Amino acid sequence: MAKIVTLTTDFGVRDAYVASMKGTMARIDPDIRFIDITNEIGPQDVMGAAFVLRTTLPHFPAGTVHLVVVDPGVGTDRRAVALRHGEQRFVGPDNGLFSLVLDGQTPDELVELNKTQYWRTTAPSRTFQGRDVFAPVAAHLASGRSLRDVGTPVDELHRLQWALPISDDQGIQGWVVHVDHYGNCITNIHRDNFESSRRGRSLKCFAGNGILFDVYNTYGDVAPGEPLVLFDSSDLLEVAVNAGNASELFDIRKGDTVNLIFVD
Amino acid sequence: MAKIVTLTTDFGVRDAYVASMKGTMARIDPDIRFIDITNEIGPQDVMGAAFVLRTTLPHFPAGTVHLVVVDPGVGTDRRAVALRHGEQRFVGPDNGLFSLVLDGQTPDELVELNKTQYWRTTAPSRTFQGRDVFAPVAAHLASGRSLRDVGTPVDELHRLQWALPISDDQGIQGWVVHVDHYGNCITNIHRDNFESSRRGRSLKCFAGNGILFDVYNTYGDVAPGEPLVLFDSSDLLEVAVNAGNASELFDIRKGDTVNLIFVD
Amino acid sequence: MAKIVTLTTDFGVRDAYVASMKGTMARIDPDIRFIDITNEIGPQDVMGAAFVLRTTLPHFPAGTVHLVVVDPGVGTDRRAVALRHGEQRFVGPDNGLFSLVLDGQTPDELVELNKTQYWRTTAPSRTFQGRDVFAPVAAHLASGRSLRDVGTPVDELHRLQWALPISDDQGIQGWVVHVDHYGNCITNIHRDNFESSRRGRSLKCFAGNGILFDVYNTYGDVAPGEPLVLFDSSDLLEVAVNAGNASELFDIRKGDTVNLIFVD
Repeated sequence: MAKIVTLTTDFGVRDAYVASMKGTMARIDPDIRFIDITNEIGPQDVMGAAFVLRTTLPHFPAGTVHLVVVDPGVGTDRRAVALRHGEQRFVGPDNGLFSLVLDGQTPDELVELNKTQYWRTTAPSRTFQGRDVFAPVAAHLASGRSLRDVGTPVDELHRLQWALPISDDQGIQGWVVHVDHYGNCITNIHRDNFESSRRGRSLKCFAGNGILFDVYNTYGDVAPGEPLVLFDSSDLLEVAVNAGNASELFDIRKGDTVNLIFVD
Repeated sequence: MAKIVTLTTDFGVRDAYVASMKGTMARIDPDIRFIDITNEIGPQDVMGAAFVLRTTLPHFPAGTVHLVVVDPGVGTDRRAVALRHGEQRFVGPDNGLFSLVLDGQTPDELVELNKTQYWRTTAPSRTFQGRDVFAPVAAHLASGRSLRDVGTPVDELHRLQWALPISDDQGIQGWVVHVDHYGNCITNIHRDNFESSRRGRSLKCFAGNGILFDVYNTYGDVAPGEPLVLFDSSDLLEVAVNAGNASELFDIRKGDTVNLIFVD
Repeated sequence: MAKIVTLTTDFGVRDAYVASMKGTMARIDPDIRFIDITNEIGPQDVMGAAFVLRTTLPHFPAGTVHLVVVDPGVGTDRRAVALRHGEQRFVGPDNGLFSLVLDGQTPDELVELNKTQYWRTTAPSRTFQGRDVFAPVAAHLASGRSLRDVGTPVDELHRLQWALPISDDQGIQGWVVHVDHYGNCITNIHRDNFESSRRGRSLKCFAGNGILFDVYNTYGDVAPGEPLVLFDSSDLLEVAVNAGNASELFDIRKGDTVNLIFVD
């Protein structure tokens, strides 16, 4: 089995933080291979990290260990945990991030990290537990250790919850949960929810200072520079501009409301 | 043989896109190793991607598979292709990018991707064929499949052409094809073209709001802060500033004209 | 033994430079694994590169080869070197960077690179010796060659020296040596130096336009938005803001003075 550890952090790529974690893991098992999911999560943006990780998760092989370090409470009494969900495992701080990733589901296994023999040091830094606790534990898991080896079973993850869209007969109110690199504005409105509420009616979509009509299949269905509503590759409703930046054009930011009105 | 897949995309590194492609490939063959050429191509900048890929191509080993996803026409009827040029293979959209990389040469083999058993799904996303078509095909190629396995031979690549410099007895007019991370302005004027036109005469180079004289061998041949003309590591004429930023100093951007006048 | 080559450069990630070095190394030995320390060192910032590399160094396994290309003097007569310090090896230009990394210690082995059979070409580019000299030598070292194979022993590294803090009975004057991705301002004042000077007295810390008191253990010891002084994961004194950006809040930049006054 391949030994893959992915990284999702808010460490950026200018400093020594990411490399120190990879070096620490390579010392434990030089055969581990690293795949950066992203190190460009906004500082302390737990929800942002959960969104990106949840989106990419279905595409990783069984056995992958996901190391997640977005840790505003580093060095406080927030727990350090590892968990298994299906065939994938996760290591990081228990700050709600993993309950968002699992969408409220109970993990198949959950342990609190307290076996210091799997840490880099028994006296970990109060500001960089990514290097001293999470990375070494992730490496030991990838290298063959079980969750029971590295921690003690506990019952519950710290809970956070995604804001859900609100529907009534007239339409749906949702929120922008992610603005991507292109300025595409991805909402929390799922294709299934949309179709069952729409019932064949026409669409009026209010997003930022724009009003959009209809749903398209792909960017090239409208002319370059034209805006559109479509479903993204995870079946979430997205406001976009073909060959342009919807976030800038319509002044839409993460957290903004998007209102869909269905018209007979 | 090593299984190396390189990535050249305009996906940026903040979102799940690059990781979803790597995860998809790791599911197909966990031994594949990934080398990012860059994921920071400007959105939809097909020429920019071709320039960077063409520059780095001579340095990769035989057997490398280059996955390229800069795909303004995703989900439209532009073809999805794989090709072989010498000992290296390429996978991506047929939007002219590969004809630029090959500089108009005919590929040794060219297939249209239509064998859906090598895709992630027979119903690929209309907005993310990188994940659903190109990445899985690249993984299968790296893993031992042939071009004939994954597609059906076709004749011609979609053609795009590099703008070529114009020479006459007085000099050469070229264009800035790339501004690099340092602000070095790289033109489409090759050293051979330059030398054969120059015939020992003195040089006057008009670039942005600057006039430069002479050709140097390296940055340190002039004082820090001083501008210079030199040939870059691919033998293209470059306008630079030692320990400075020529693009900013002279207000030179990609696409700008550079005029060389040869003086007796 | 794992074949790991790390990269520390000021090349950025938009251009072909980093990929051309990795491709060149993969041609020499396809089993080499690459770990980017960072390619986002400021252009020509030799001290910045040394700081990041020195911070992460203790965490890498024996046998690692560190390829460092921050090379303002490329193509001039500055030497190209490889060195061994304990069980780790380094390749790059001899511009003072390695003497900073080693903190003035003499390397266990030091050679000047002059065996052109280990280069990509006997006529290396005058502007990109990373690709033509340093990367191939790093690959050959990772692949089993010794320092003696790739160069000729020389005596001394080019010397640069870290600025040291100045202490007197009243306090310590230090400098900000690194501002990290979060805006944390890391000084050159080590915990040991601090404790031995402080002798139990209260602290007043002048940094930028801020005055701070006390030393905390971690960010969460103060409320979000509140500033604090603490020791970072390398035991250097740091000025930070919990869930905020100290560099912006107090207008502190790299190189700025930080004054500690101890009060009875």
